[in-house]
Amino acid sequence: MKTEGLSINLATVREQWNLREAVEACARQGIRAIDPWRDQVAKIGLEESARVIRDHGMQVTGYCRGGMFTAADDAGRKAAIEENIRAIDEAVALGADCLVFVVGGLPQGSRDIAGARSQVRDGLGAVLNHARKVKMPLAIEPLHPMYAADRACVNTLGQSLDLADELGQGVGVAIDVYHVWWDPDVEREIARAGKAKQIFAYHICDWLVPTKDLLLDRGMMGDGVIDLKRLHGLITQAGFHGPQEVEIFSANDWWKRPGDDVIRTCIERYNAVCL
Amino acid sequence: MKTEGLSINLATVREQWNLREAVEACARQGIRAIDPWRDQVAKIGLEESARVIRDHGMQVTGYCRGGMFTAADDAGRKAAIEENIRAIDEAVALGADCLVFVVGGLPQGSRDIAGARSQVRDGLGAVLNHARKVKMPLAIEPLHPMYAADRACVNTLGQSLDLADELGQGVGVAIDVYHVWWDPDVEREIARAGKAKQIFAYHICDWLVPTKDLLLDRGMMGDGVIDLKRLHGLITQAGFHGPQEVEIFSANDWWKRPGDDVIRTCIERYNAVCL
Repeated sequence: MKTEGLSINLATVREQWNLREAVEACARQGIRAIDPWRDQVAKIGLEESARVIRDHGMQVTGYCRGGMFTAADDAGRKAAIEENIRAIDEAVALGADCLVFVVGGLPQGSRDIAGARSQVRDGLGAVLNHARKVKMPLAIEPLHPMYAADRACVNTLGQSLDLADELGQGVGVAIDVYHVWWDPDVEREIARAGKAKQIFAYHICDWLVPTKDLLLDRGMMGDGVIDLKRLHGLITQAGFHGPQEVEIFSANDWWKRPGDDVIRTCIERYNAVCL
Repeated sequence: MKTEGLSINLATVREQWNLREAVEACARQGIRAIDPWRDQVAKIGLEESARVIRDHGMQVTGYCRGGMFTAADDAGRKAAIEENIRAIDEAVALGADCLVFVVGGLPQGSRDIAGARSQVRDGLGAVLNHARKVKMPLAIEPLHPMYAADRACVNTLGQSLDLADELGQGVGVAIDVYHVWWDPDVEREIARAGKAKQIFAYHICDWLVPTKDLLLDRGMMGDGVIDLKRLHGLITQAGFHGPQEVEIFSANDWWKRPGDDVIRTCIERYNAVCL
């Protein structure tokens, strides 16, 4: 079965393995690309993480995650900017293709979503010079509108691309099917993103019916209602030919299975329903 | 405290009362407008429902609900159209301002959301002549994208207005803050809807953080993150001056409280955070 063009976001096996174990397990099954999370890197250390990834010849299709720019006061926003500078440097050390941004929701006690969106623009703007200097692409990930309050107030691909356009060179998007599959404008906006060379990453999983938890009930490809072949076709037509990256948060199902089974299933489903 | 301009969608007290009891309870607290659900009407009968509503001089700000047009086969779609004709006639019998549509999600086994959207357009088109003949306005309710698969594949106000424009006279929208508050285009689309006289109803509640259930965890106005004053301002500016209709599905909170307390709280919060 084909493993080329498949990347495993290590959140998918975060409950089973640390970064080293996860990379080794991916390599054993022929996977050549991964996306680690900051807490996973912190746990075994940045140098060791970089070494493990390099030793296994892994492409790093993204680094999760920067963002969380919104805060109730200046001190909070300043701290977020500093944290994001560190995240950019880590992404460089890991040789990541991009740093993925979950931009942040409403600050504590706020109902001002327009204000939150301004804070996001300003926060990204504040780290952009550094990112350009170290040549780290910044990928804004629009999150499903159900996360607008508590995770990300950037909620459609179109909105992300407007923001990327405003910020300019070095800023693009990470397109995750979970967040955009429902969007009536998804076809048009993927084409627009491709034309502007703003697609930096492509994430896959599935939307389950019913969905029992807003955050931790993502499905394995093929188990839900997303037309993955069609979306991948649009992504390819738009000129993005990077790996499809599996990112599944699944507290009660996939996080409870043996990690090797999860990886094997990712490969099977990638071949069956994603190409 | 002001009760003028406030309507109670009877789903808000569906676990406490039948339609008659709910209308009487609303009247006792000075409420002059309600929106009943079809199952509530069926339970005590259409004639009796119409009589109770008339006897209490209640405005019926909407009737919930038509829709569910999508189906896996022709027989299913035909049955849905017939059911919607009946719903229109019931709405007329109740003197409703409009019939509210939750249009339907993906048919069983389908991943074709564009196809589902076509079915919705065709279904609405099939009942429109009858609706025009009996003068019943049809209000498409865009549902939050988290319901795209299982409840409604019309998920933004803009998409609803495009559909209303395509269908023409007699078709508009029901705008529920729960479904649209996150939309970066909400200001523009409310203005557009107002200009075209397409706002037929305005529903309120709140988005809780965290939200523990996709369907049955709506909040009371003021308990969540929606800027209700701002949205009502936009609605008013757009020329809609009908009642604000409270619709709260809350399995573990408001549905468990005494109905009189729920209604009283609706009135208090309406005065405190919605005007």
